[in-house]
Formats: sequence, C-alpha cells, structure tokens
Amino acid sequence: MTSGAQQALDMIGRVFIEPGGVVLTEEPTYLGAIQAFTFYQVRFVSVKTDREGMLPDDLEKKIKQHKPLFVYVVPDFQNPAGYSWSNERREALIELAQKYDIPVVDDNPYSDLRFSGEKPKSLKAMGGRHVIQLGTFSKLISPGLRIGWIVADPEIAALCERMKQAADLHTNTFTQFVIYEFSKGGGLDRHIEKIKTAYSKRRDTMIEALRANFDDGTTWTEPEGGLFLWVKLPEGKSANDLLMKALENKVAYVPGMYFFSEVPDDTTLRINFCNATEENIKEGVRRLAKVFSEAK
Amino acid sequence: MTSGAQQALDMIGRVFIEPGGVVLTEEPTYLGAIQAFTFYQVRFVSVKTDREGMLPDDLEKKIKQHKPLFVYVVPDFQNPAGYSWSNERREALIELAQKYDIPVVDDNPYSDLRFSGEKPKSLKAMGGRHVIQLGTFSKLISPGLRIGWIVADPEIAALCERMKQAADLHTNTFTQFVIYEFSKGGGLDRHIEKIKTAYSKRRDTMIEALRANFDDGTTWTEPEGGLFLWVKLPEGKSANDLLMKALENKVAYVPGMYFFSEVPDDTTLRINFCNATEENIKEGVRRLAKVFSEAK
Repeated sequence: MTSGAQQALDMIGRVFIEPGGVVLTEEPTYLGAIQAFTFYQVRFVSVKTDREGMLPDDLEKKIKQHKPLFVYVVPDFQNPAGYSWSNERREALIELAQKYDIPVVDDNPYSDLRFSGEKPKSLKAMGGRHVIQLGTFSKLISPGLRIGWIVADPEIAALCERMKQAADLHTNTFTQFVIYEFSKGGGLDRHIEKIKTAYSKRRDTMIEALRANFDDGTTWTEPEGGLFLWVKLPEGKSANDLLMKALENKVAYVPGMYFFSEVPDDTTLRINFCNATEENIKEGVRRLAKVFSEAK
Repeated sequence: MTSGAQQALDMIGRVFIEPGGVVLTEEPTYLGAIQAFTFYQVRFVSVKTDREGMLPDDLEKKIKQHKPLFVYVVPDFQNPAGYSWSNERREALIELAQKYDIPVVDDNPYSDLRFSGEKPKSLKAMGGRHVIQLGTFSKLISPGLRIGWIVADPEIAALCERMKQAADLHTNTFTQFVIYEFSKGGGLDRHIEKIKTAYSKRRDTMIEALRANFDDGTTWTEPEGGLFLWVKLPEGKSANDLLMKALENKVAYVPGMYFFSEVPDDTTLRINFCNATEENIKEGVRRLAKVFSEAK
C-alpha cells in the first residue's frame, strides 16, 4: 500500500533507477511519472505511440539500443491522451518484455472507469512477473485519501517495502479501515457505477461541445472511459502561450508540453471532463474555442 | 504537512543531502533518521553527547572540520536515549548554528509528552530561520494517521513542497479533517493529559522494576517524559545477541546498536514504557533481568 499511486511511482524510481539509466515511455506520457522518475536522474526515451499504444517495431529497436531499466505505460484511458491500448499491442509489449527480460510498469488508475466498449486484457494478467501494476483509490473514491498500491512479485514487493520504510514508514491505516468499511457489502461498486454514469454524460457533453465549437482542424480523442480528452490544435498554435488568456476567461487546462518525456508538442492540451457540470463544460469549451480562434 | 515525521526526514534528505555530504548527529541518534538520510548517500559524523546534549566544543570542532549540510538533533526526550537537552546546550547549539550558518533539524515528536520537570526553551523559538522543526500527531494521537509536519522558513518550505509533489503529491486531507475535528474545542489537549497520566505511571513502574531486578552495574536513563528508557548493560554483554533469547521469553526491545550513526555500542538497548500494562512491564523487566544475568 502506498500514499496514492504517485508514491508507487516514487518507490519504483527508488528501487529501479540508477542515475543515467533509461526508462522507455509512451509519447505523450504521464507528467507525474516524469516528475517522480526525474528525481532519480533517469534518462527518458520515448517510443513512437499511436492511439492503440506503442509501435512494437520502435519499442523493440529502443529496447535493443538502450537496454532500459523498465518500460512505463498507462495502457487504460491513458493520462493524458485518453486512448486505451489494443489487445494486439498489449500482446506485443508483453512478448518483448519477456523476450528481453525487461519489467513493465503498468500504471493503472482508470481501468475501472470504462463507460463503453469492451475491456481489453490486463497487462498484469498477461505478463505475470514481468509486470508491476500500480493502482489507486484516488480516481475511484477521492484523491484526498492517498491510498494506492503496487502489485508485484514478492522480491520486488520486498524491495519496495524496504524503500517505503525509509520514506514514510507505512501508509495511513486509519484511511484503509475507512475504505474497507465503505467498500464491503458493495458500497464501492455502487459508487463506481454512479460516477461512471455522471462522467460518461460529461464526456458526451464535452465531445458535443468540441464538435459544435471547433471547425479549424483541431482534433481530440474520444475515449471510452477515464477522465480526460487530449486535444491537438492546428500547427502554429501554442497551448502553453494561450493558457494565460484562457485563465483570464476563467477556463483552465493542462498544456500538453509537460506530458512529453523527450520532445514536447506544444500544440496539445489535456482537458478534464469529470469535475465540472454539463453547463460549465459547454460554456468552458465555448470560451476555449473563442480564445484559440482569436490567437494568431 | 507530511506523511508522519518520517516523511519529513525524507524531505529534508531530498532537499539538503548531496552524495558524500556530512550530517552531524547525536550519539546515539534516531534510527529512522539514519534510514531516511542513508538513502541519499549521506556521510554521518557523530558529535560527543552526554545526558544534557551535544558537547559544544566537539560540535564546533566537527562543524569546522566537516562543514556539515545540517545538524540533526532530537532535543526533547531523545529517541532512543530519553534525555532532554539543557538550556545551556541549546543556547550553545544555536549560537554555533548562527555563527557558522548551519541549519539545525529539530526533530520534535515528544516535547508535549512531559510528565515532570520544567519545559526547556524551544530550539525553533531560539534559532529562528536556522532551525527546521519536525512534528507529528503519531505520538499524540496515533501513528496510523501518518500526519506530521515541517516548520521552516518559506524558501525551505517551498523546496520541501516541490519534493513532496514528486514523492506523493500531498498528505491525506481526509485524516487532517478528522484530526481537526478531534482537536478543536480542546479534545486533543484532554487526550494528551490522559496519555501523560498513563505513560507517567508506566515510566515509574518500569524504573521501579529496573531498580528491583538489576544490581549488576546496568544503568538506565530516567526521562521526564516521552516513551523510552535507554539501558546500558555491563561491558561484555551484547544486547543484539541477547535479543533472540529475550524473544523466546516473549519480551522485545530494540538493540541499541542500530541507533549509532558511526560506531555502535552493543551494550545498549531501548525499552518502551508507553504501550504495555503495568503488570506486563513488571513481568517483562523481570524476564529481561533473568535473560541478561544468565548470559556470559
């Protein structure tokens, strides 16, 4: 048990990363992982990625070239891009991990938040001891609880445990009891159904609003679950530069450039559909479209 | 706010320690600090310490010689030794910290657990920006809550905050609300009075039992508060070797050797009086005396 999945990332960094060692990531990848691993003086190499996951040829090339410490992926409703890996790409990843004996870190906070489509295979179930899976209650109940976890083989779990002891001794047991009481008897399952219904409507509202307001070549992902859409503006627009103007209009987003471990693409941004009312989503997208269209 | 004072130690390590840099400690010192700082490849130097704190001459000599990153102390009911620094030694420490511009880390989980004697001056109050004070609810309410804190100047607090974000984003807010509700209206103060009464009786019981059972030159501290006594066996006995025998008799303690940052003294051990009934304390000390007296 860890203090949220962020601490799980920190423990993985503590256990695996030697200064200058290489970690392979998707492109884009989760900025919290970039922050956690950067402290340990990692060298990131990003693997070519499309909306079904990493491209197996590029992955194998980079495994051979860099002998990475591990491959870090967010295969389900990826943060930031929102897509999920296809089963074919999952199989290819696990095959390569086994062939070259490289651990895969399967950062998995969102897979229970699927609104539609078929659930793909679990990397952990497919890959066994080669896969270290990270989970959290942050996206299922509340991030304020700081209760996450690492699922790994006993030798790796023991190393994480030793590192954890030096870092903060152990994870809040009081909150673990509270979550246990909330979850038993189906409380957590009912809660997940409830938030899936709410988030699903908000996702639909956001996609409709994007369609209604953007006709300039802007594109976005349409994920089957999770919390985010990933937006790509026409070439020449800087999501980072436009943020100040958006904030003046009281709309916030995360510029996409912070989600790249190597070369940032500043025409991208992440927008979150789960935490605003449908009315605010419509109005927010309208204002964003105005700010972006006025930009040169 | 940190995940217990252990994470405060880890944040101090992240912010201040460069590989090979020196930290000055008391002798003995807290083993959790040794664990936390060791991860950052610190070099420990221990300062000669008696039951009033560090000896100022040796401290100044070692500051000049090693140019330490900081001085780490547990000035109130020290873990493991139980003593508290005298006001004179506190003044000398702060004077040297200011003269040589060295931060002092004042690890302070126990000062509210004073049963008798006069409260000495606060290092933080005396030393201002040179002192970083660490605190926790672990010893006042429960360690399972994992709520501690760092009190420091804004520039240092900002560095800790940035490190904390990479490590686990933030500290459990749910539990902070729970503690706030428990504390407001005097609930925490009443609870502290209650545990002080209980711990004070248990300390007295343990000291009486030690006096009644040990007459072989074994010595111990008689602290005015906190949780621990520090025991020193006659030369030639190994507290570490005797632990297995004690455990066979269902009595546990912490061998003192783990509390030394440089040269361990294996004739020492830490015993805790706060978490056992008075009956168990009496019986436990009786069994310990038997185990130790039978050893060659």
